[in-house]
Amino acid sequence: MYLSNRITGLTGNDGDGWGLFLRAREMIAAGEDVIELTIGEHDISTSHIILGEMDRSARGGHTGYAMVPGVTALRDAVAARVEARTGVTTTRDNVLITPGGQAGLFATHAAVCDPGDRALYIDPYYATYPGTIRGASAFPVSVEARAQDGFQPHAEAIAAAAPDAKSLLINSPNNPTGVVYSHETLEGIAGVIKAQDMWLISDEVYDTQVWEGEHLSPRALPGMKERTLVVGSMSKSHAMTGSRVGWVVGPEEAIGHMIDLATHTTYGVAGFIQDAALFALEQGAPLEEEVSAPFRRRRQQARTAIAAQNVVRLVPAQGAMYLMLDIRATGMSGEDFGYALLEAEKIAVMPGESFGKAAAGHIRVAMTVNDDAFGQAFARLLAFAAEKAQTREGAA
Amino acid sequence: MYLSNRITGLTGNDGDGWGLFLRAREMIAAGEDVIELTIGEHDISTSHIILGEMDRSARGGHTGYAMVPGVTALRDAVAARVEARTGVTTTRDNVLITPGGQAGLFATHAAVCDPGDRALYIDPYYATYPGTIRGASAFPVSVEARAQDGFQPHAEAIAAAAPDAKSLLINSPNNPTGVVYSHETLEGIAGVIKAQDMWLISDEVYDTQVWEGEHLSPRALPGMKERTLVVGSMSKSHAMTGSRVGWVVGPEEAIGHMIDLATHTTYGVAGFIQDAALFALEQGAPLEEEVSAPFRRRRQQARTAIAAQNVVRLVPAQGAMYLMLDIRATGMSGEDFGYALLEAEKIAVMPGESFGKAAAGHIRVAMTVNDDAFGQAFARLLAFAAEKAQTREGAA
Repeated sequence: MYLSNRITGLTGNDGDGWGLFLRAREMIAAGEDVIELTIGEHDISTSHIILGEMDRSARGGHTGYAMVPGVTALRDAVAARVEARTGVTTTRDNVLITPGGQAGLFATHAAVCDPGDRALYIDPYYATYPGTIRGASAFPVSVEARAQDGFQPHAEAIAAAAPDAKSLLINSPNNPTGVVYSHETLEGIAGVIKAQDMWLISDEVYDTQVWEGEHLSPRALPGMKERTLVVGSMSKSHAMTGSRVGWVVGPEEAIGHMIDLATHTTYGVAGFIQDAALFALEQGAPLEEEVSAPFRRRRQQARTAIAAQNVVRLVPAQGAMYLMLDIRATGMSGEDFGYALLEAEKIAVMPGESFGKAAAGHIRVAMTVNDDAFGQAFARLLAFAAEKAQTREGAA
Repeated sequence: MYLSNRITGLTGNDGDGWGLFLRAREMIAAGEDVIELTIGEHDISTSHIILGEMDRSARGGHTGYAMVPGVTALRDAVAARVEARTGVTTTRDNVLITPGGQAGLFATHAAVCDPGDRALYIDPYYATYPGTIRGASAFPVSVEARAQDGFQPHAEAIAAAAPDAKSLLINSPNNPTGVVYSHETLEGIAGVIKAQDMWLISDEVYDTQVWEGEHLSPRALPGMKERTLVVGSMSKSHAMTGSRVGWVVGPEEAIGHMIDLATHTTYGVAGFIQDAALFALEQGAPLEEEVSAPFRRRRQQARTAIAAQNVVRLVPAQGAMYLMLDIRATGMSGEDFGYALLEAEKIAVMPGESFGKAAAGHIRVAMTVNDDAFGQAFARLLAFAAEKAQTREGAA
């Protein structure tokens, strides 16, 4: 039977890059003791104070259809949070609550791209980006952020790809690189966006995980609030990955139309989950810091270990729950290194190649096991890399 | 700023038909005592035994990313339920768990329609149908099910619209008409679907609410399981409207691609909600009957009242939580009658015109207040219609 080109071509020809991840899962299922540093899943569950609020809301009767745009109090809280963090006037009419950040990525592209339109994204990229664009029947075009530039994208490269494009998708703090885009980078991007009359879709789901410098939301730059759609989520900031609740913030007209789209694609988000999210946001910075603190500690562990060797290079780890390691001194690809590490050391990481061409020769390490296990695994990873580099030198 | 044609044209030129609903909400917000018989929302909340299971699951740690296709045990339970009800062999590989039935309607159309493809649906229709098709960048084409045919669609009318169409969307038990499609109707539809090599998208979310005759899933007809995508949901059957959990059942290949789509549009459904849904399904028929019993009782109340007058005609009310009333004897349109009833009697119903052209001169009554309130409201509605019919006769 016929299936749409959209759906049969969704994952494209770029391969899905999840072979190693699936291999690790198989090994775990077979009883092997694999240390999982692959995906962005906290090693803690959602806080019981948040779950308690969810239960109170549900038993209190908030189990019927919620308003499609989102519960008013949650829209207000998201608006207030965004305004406080950016200085940009934001009201509930600028906010659509979505069933997770991924739904926001899809909805924003569906809102600004017609079928066949070009939509830009930065390589290296979070795995779903090109497929999300294809899901909206648009055509994904990658713009490389180069390793030698510390994975900061250049305005010139974006400008070269921009003619006729409807949108650019960026992500800072960045998954997979751990880079936080500088003011200079974001101003350069904003310049291209305005010059080409495009939309900027800004995925800011890691905005509470900044270890160095500061997060700048490009919506706060001059002339950008009219053309920026910000995607946010409770997943990473509040360890609520499984609750599937996030938002899109943007101009009122765009949000109005996206509410129509939500009526026809999801029909809203569970009210008791929204009440739980509201409660979590009301806890303010202390809860967010509690959730991000382990990653801050583990990053420091890793930096100390990295400083004591000279084979593996750490891409400046400024934010997000990942470390991007340059392992080219071993002479191996990220993929070969990843598989070898998994077989030899039972440590699972993501090959840089999983995230596009720009991160070839790198691996991404998610800092998602407890400090002791992380420290030991990281030391073994470095030792393994050193051994591979030595073997290579011996052969040379 | 540019917004896509898809999103700006989503609600089409057909009007959204929700003016009366919104007017009733305004009156309620202003403190007026309006009896709400508009939307398909139970007058009970989700059972506390289901919510208790959700809380146990969440506190037990099922708060991380769930598998995108759905929790295996829930996929198995849905497959077993569908197989038991239809006799069609069904496994978890035929099942995708979605964040509600609406997400299933969208995903199925996205899966089978390319941009610009014609997608058929039956008029009268549930309000989101044409917009859902537009949301998938396809072109909605309505096929009329006529009042004089008891709103059973004719195969000939479908065949006339079918050339070049990719899909037909049907809904039985039907919202808004309360009609259950007969075997003859469904066999006629299946014949067209096979002859034209189309997909049938079968919205069966009311399959536990059948008052007369029996529900036949068209997937069970010969040669149809290869070309039918069934949309199901916990919303109506288990009073879990706000939980946003449903499914699509279909051929393995289509489901496989729809899992890819889900990765890029929603990234799965909250694990604790899926656990709650599994628990609810495990309660079997008794819980489903408990949830549907009030509608069965109220339908009987209405039939008794209808039999004692001869102005308002009840469309055979075979299933679902709605009654479709023919009020043409008043000489009024459904919309005029609905607004007049709201102003005079503070009773809110949906004009038939909200659901397309075919139900003009009708109103839809949702049986969603307690038996006493329903009985009184229904009696006042009939008296109001009688008065309008008399005024008309007097004028004639």
